[in-house]
Amino acid sequence: MTDADEVRLARVALGCLTEPGNRELGMLVRRVGPVEGLDRLVRGSVSERLAEAARLRLTDATDARVLARSLLGDADRLGARVVTPEDDEWPRQLDDLVRLSRAADGRAVERDTDPPHCLWVRGDVALDEAFDRSVAVIGARAASNYGTYVATEMAHGLAERGWTVVSGGAYGIDAAAHRAALAAGGLTAAILASGLDRPYPLGHANLFDRIGESGLLVSEWPFGSAPHRMRFLIRNRVIAAATRGTVVVEAAGRSGARQTLGRARALGRAAMAVPGPVTSAMSVGCHAELRQEGTRLVNDHGEVIEEVGRIGDDLAPTPRGPERPHDTLDPLAAQLLDAVLPRKARTAEEVAAAAGVSGRDARRTLPTLVAAGFVVEHDNGYRLAPTPP
Amino acid sequence: MTDADEVRLARVALGCLTEPGNRELGMLVRRVGPVEGLDRLVRGSVSERLAEAARLRLTDATDARVLARSLLGDADRLGARVVTPEDDEWPRQLDDLVRLSRAADGRAVERDTDPPHCLWVRGDVALDEAFDRSVAVIGARAASNYGTYVATEMAHGLAERGWTVVSGGAYGIDAAAHRAALAAGGLTAAILASGLDRPYPLGHANLFDRIGESGLLVSEWPFGSAPHRMRFLIRNRVIAAATRGTVVVEAAGRSGARQTLGRARALGRAAMAVPGPVTSAMSVGCHAELRQEGTRLVNDHGEVIEEVGRIGDDLAPTPRGPERPHDTLDPLAAQLLDAVLPRKARTAEEVAAAAGVSGRDARRTLPTLVAAGFVVEHDNGYRLAPTPP
Repeated sequence: MTDADEVRLARVALGCLTEPGNRELGMLVRRVGPVEGLDRLVRGSVSERLAEAARLRLTDATDARVLARSLLGDADRLGARVVTPEDDEWPRQLDDLVRLSRAADGRAVERDTDPPHCLWVRGDVALDEAFDRSVAVIGARAASNYGTYVATEMAHGLAERGWTVVSGGAYGIDAAAHRAALAAGGLTAAILASGLDRPYPLGHANLFDRIGESGLLVSEWPFGSAPHRMRFLIRNRVIAAATRGTVVVEAAGRSGARQTLGRARALGRAAMAVPGPVTSAMSVGCHAELRQEGTRLVNDHGEVIEEVGRIGDDLAPTPRGPERPHDTLDPLAAQLLDAVLPRKARTAEEVAAAAGVSGRDARRTLPTLVAAGFVVEHDNGYRLAPTPP
Repeated sequence: MTDADEVRLARVALGCLTEPGNRELGMLVRRVGPVEGLDRLVRGSVSERLAEAARLRLTDATDARVLARSLLGDADRLGARVVTPEDDEWPRQLDDLVRLSRAADGRAVERDTDPPHCLWVRGDVALDEAFDRSVAVIGARAASNYGTYVATEMAHGLAERGWTVVSGGAYGIDAAAHRAALAAGGLTAAILASGLDRPYPLGHANLFDRIGESGLLVSEWPFGSAPHRMRFLIRNRVIAAATRGTVVVEAAGRSGARQTLGRARALGRAAMAVPGPVTSAMSVGCHAELRQEGTRLVNDHGEVIEEVGRIGDDLAPTPRGPERPHDTLDPLAAQLLDAVLPRKARTAEEVAAAAGVSGRDARRTLPTLVAAGFVVEHDNGYRLAPTPP
């Protein structure tokens, strides 16, 4: 077994032995590395609290590495993969959670906000690409018709403009956001709070299959993990950290979506909320957030992009350098490029109509975008190149 | 004629000769006093621009003081009075407009935001008392059912808790606010943009009569002045300055209510807006304001009072000293006092129910509040004393 394989196996095992986010374990692994960290955890040569946290999963008969190897075999069979911080596609912005952990204290869910050890993933897109330009659109399960409508419009607009719509896969606002992104031919990622083989809610099994086919299903929990209540709150930190900003579309006074928004704010991500009627219980949480410093009112996807665009430029420079390749294009080409979708091919005429330019201009300029590597031809149309030049 | 009469007459004349708010005239009057200021204006020994501004009203035959005297006679006959800065009841907070004037520049309506020379008033309450604890509740003429409902609830709650509801007398939100304050047995003031004998809109003539009987009708414009379009924008600065805060309940993207809110913000008053559905054109202006620094989202009258209470304590200490008499009462008495209305008598049982205390406690404690001068007996019930001890 190569060193790299050993590190990977250790990460997977670490992800099985405690609930994700354990701060003490995270600090240990950063200090001594995942392999030595796992050994110490298994030997019990860690603090009593950490040993206690891991004990529930460590029956004496279990060899953690055997368990991890069997999970990796399951992943292969089930068409999933595991992604660890050693992988190129690891979304680096998750490392910001280290900062959040240090800031917080109190209840375990407040304190234990360390980055994941690994992520279980179903879907072809690389995580770093998918989350580079991503926004979380989240909210109440018991959404109103108004909230469902706004989430749909917003996610559709974001997806159509090449932003990945991230949400939690729940009923209500989450589902509306995922569905609208799929309908727009864009990219959507569901970050779940149970194993990828344990879809929750069950009623979304089909939706999750569609997301897995054209987008991403992501979880920190290994196969077989049940959707315990607390896990949704643990999971929320990943939604907040992976994205450039979080929009709460509807939320009751007490709501998990508000916790995610708080995480986003604490991480320096754009924190946004949609207002609604003051007479609606489903807008109470949004209004409470908007009465705080640091949460921005947004009416539509355009205002969301304004926020995450800016925050993105300020706080999370992309690894591609200070200037996006996009910025080097002439105005006509840039306008056309904005109208090319990431996953659904559009004909030159459709691109022209969406960009508001003539068909002739589109037919003349699109091939230069293909030649430059921004766009690929596909199904008698054009769509964005998976990796821009 | 006494000196005081002469000053009063000069103020009235000054109020007739230019549009209210003229900054240059205000500065002149502050420098040389109203009598000398009027003389210079009439003689034309002022800047060309100011002479030009006054010329339209100064036909050669007109003696400004004769005009003023005749207006004062009209006021007597029509049951109105004029209030000038020399009067005890002058609301001192209007002087803050001097500060606003210095800050602004540009179009006349932006630049000419000086305090009024005088106010024409119908209604028995003293202006300073009425505006001491007052909130402006304003918004769109083309209000939605939602906006009308929210304005009604909010104004009712404010009036019931002893806050004067100030608005502009227009259709829609303004009218809903005035009506709700009247229905609550509270105090409401309409600040108009035309002479008190020229009700506008005409459809509100009855509403204005009711406001004049139990509240206040106020205008800077002398009898006979028509409601020119620009005058509403000039008037708005008085609404913003007279009150401790302004709430916009509904507003389109372009809206006079937004201008009032901007004035309130510039004056350091509480600037507040009510959110609504992002799908409603009547909430577009509110949301645009809430996306700016310095405007607070409010859901109900409780949150409004939180804002104006604080701002009031910070910026506008009442002339009654650092402690309100109220603060010296024991908790039960204070609770009961909060439930006594300013204008509508409540029985001891009604007060008890509103305060959430027992009828026995109310019957025992209310007489001590009467003895202490906080409350008066009236129509077999209790209402607030017009002037607290």
